[in-house]
Amino acid sequence: MTLSCTHSSGSARLEAAIAQYAQRVDLYLTQQLAQRPGPSPRLSEALNYSLLLGGKRLRPVLTLATAEALGGDLALADAPAAAVEMIHAYSLVHDDLPAMDDDATRRGHPTCHIQFDEATAILVGDALQTLAFELLATNDHPQALAMIRCLAQASGPQGMVGGQMLDLQSEGQRLNLEQLQTLHQHKTGALIRAAVALGGYSQSASATTLAALDRYASALGLAFQVQDDLLDIQGDPSKIGKQTGADARLNKATYPSLLGLETAQAKARYLVQEAQAALQGLDGDWTLHHLLADWCILRDH
Amino acid sequence: MTLSCTHSSGSARLEAAIAQYAQRVDLYLTQQLAQRPGPSPRLSEALNYSLLLGGKRLRPVLTLATAEALGGDLALADAPAAAVEMIHAYSLVHDDLPAMDDDATRRGHPTCHIQFDEATAILVGDALQTLAFELLATNDHPQALAMIRCLAQASGPQGMVGGQMLDLQSEGQRLNLEQLQTLHQHKTGALIRAAVALGGYSQSASATTLAALDRYASALGLAFQVQDDLLDIQGDPSKIGKQTGADARLNKATYPSLLGLETAQAKARYLVQEAQAALQGLDGDWTLHHLLADWCILRDH
Repeated sequence: MTLSCTHSSGSARLEAAIAQYAQRVDLYLTQQLAQRPGPSPRLSEALNYSLLLGGKRLRPVLTLATAEALGGDLALADAPAAAVEMIHAYSLVHDDLPAMDDDATRRGHPTCHIQFDEATAILVGDALQTLAFELLATNDHPQALAMIRCLAQASGPQGMVGGQMLDLQSEGQRLNLEQLQTLHQHKTGALIRAAVALGGYSQSASATTLAALDRYASALGLAFQVQDDLLDIQGDPSKIGKQTGADARLNKATYPSLLGLETAQAKARYLVQEAQAALQGLDGDWTLHHLLADWCILRDH
Repeated sequence: MTLSCTHSSGSARLEAAIAQYAQRVDLYLTQQLAQRPGPSPRLSEALNYSLLLGGKRLRPVLTLATAEALGGDLALADAPAAAVEMIHAYSLVHDDLPAMDDDATRRGHPTCHIQFDEATAILVGDALQTLAFELLATNDHPQALAMIRCLAQASGPQGMVGGQMLDLQSEGQRLNLEQLQTLHQHKTGALIRAAVALGGYSQSASATTLAALDRYASALGLAFQVQDDLLDIQGDPSKIGKQTGADARLNKATYPSLLGLETAQAKARYLVQEAQAALQGLDGDWTLHHLLADWCILRDH
């Protein structure tokens, strides 16, 4: 993830850490795919294409950063970091399908169903999900089952997929604030919370620590979403990589449209403070988590 | 699954056992779905629709029958039986999509994307897969991780999804016998083997028993497929529920087309014997497994 914060303090450290974690997870993902070739080279190619073409890597970065902040062994967090990225990648491949968002490009590259074909993209998404759970189950970790439960609950009908369904159903409707929050908490929030929790599980964190991490991740996920809405109004299209104003044109409910611009900005700042406050009292070095929270609302793309 | 064998001996027992197991798994699936409502009632409705509209239930029947033959506690096999059926159901929902097989009906009912819509069907398949792994991880069983590994490997790119990809790639091509076998071993064989293995894991079966069960399941899965090919030539459309002769019209490689009718029939009989022989020497009552193997090639639909 390229960072361009208006604040430069800490951003160099954040960028370096993120680059290091992203490289680590990419290497691990490449190795894991290579170890599971399967009978169809074309499917392997499409899996690699969909998984390794860049992207922010926010979720695995959160998993690895959390593992490291807990003073732990990063190697224990490789499988969960890769698994959460696989779930995220599968959701993007399926979201991009013609029957869903019908997107032809992502991150400047043709989406999976354009580069290959629609049937392949369906199977790629299916296979990435399976591989996520296989990785966690093959990972000989005392918390492996807890991690699988966590990731499944976050990504299934009570989490991400439930949120995607709400999003589909909300088309042409004007959500109120509570409905908007429910949508985001499921569609994107649940997996961000799981990413942080998996880092905690990887170091066998206590229930108290996991609860604090969950407060951090919940606020972070929401701040991220509020900022996305703000960027759609105030952002620079050349930096975001897409046209702004789409939400207003589609008459979509967003935080600024429901709260007003200034209140939405204040909400984003408040959420960042809430996230950072959740970390108080935890042992370990949480600097990176503080910086990530700041970045959530300082980012310009 | 309705049975209409030409042999009546044993068929009454087989039918009764299957009806009992199918009822058991349907009840368990209904309960598990009801316990996980999620934020979208429409998604819950579509999940129920896709999972509970009948079908052979061959895979969970194999899981439960194997658990019972091992003299075990059937309750330990409920979660794995439901999980393997969820994986099978998700694969059908995605297979029926317009970009895949484009089927409008299944088991006499509109397919999920016809009854709901295409986006919902994609999400239903995704959610059913997640729920399968969630069930196994929530199941407090000493072999839970082994079961998750087994099901993931059987259904991912090295198993079912890999086979579906081979099937897509084989369109318009004429496979040879080895390629046809590879396709079926992945596309349908892997999940049938997993269904039997999960029954074994549920009773913490020994490695020797698991190996014997795997020989049974491999032969059974292949016999099932050879019979499918034979029914497409010799079957009664009113019983199969679809037109026969489709394979020949599409110039698809099948066992009869590659081996000749008589050799294909002999192969099916040989595979049934091979399946039954694999059970010799195992403790427990394997009558039902013998009857299931016979049924594989005696069935007329």
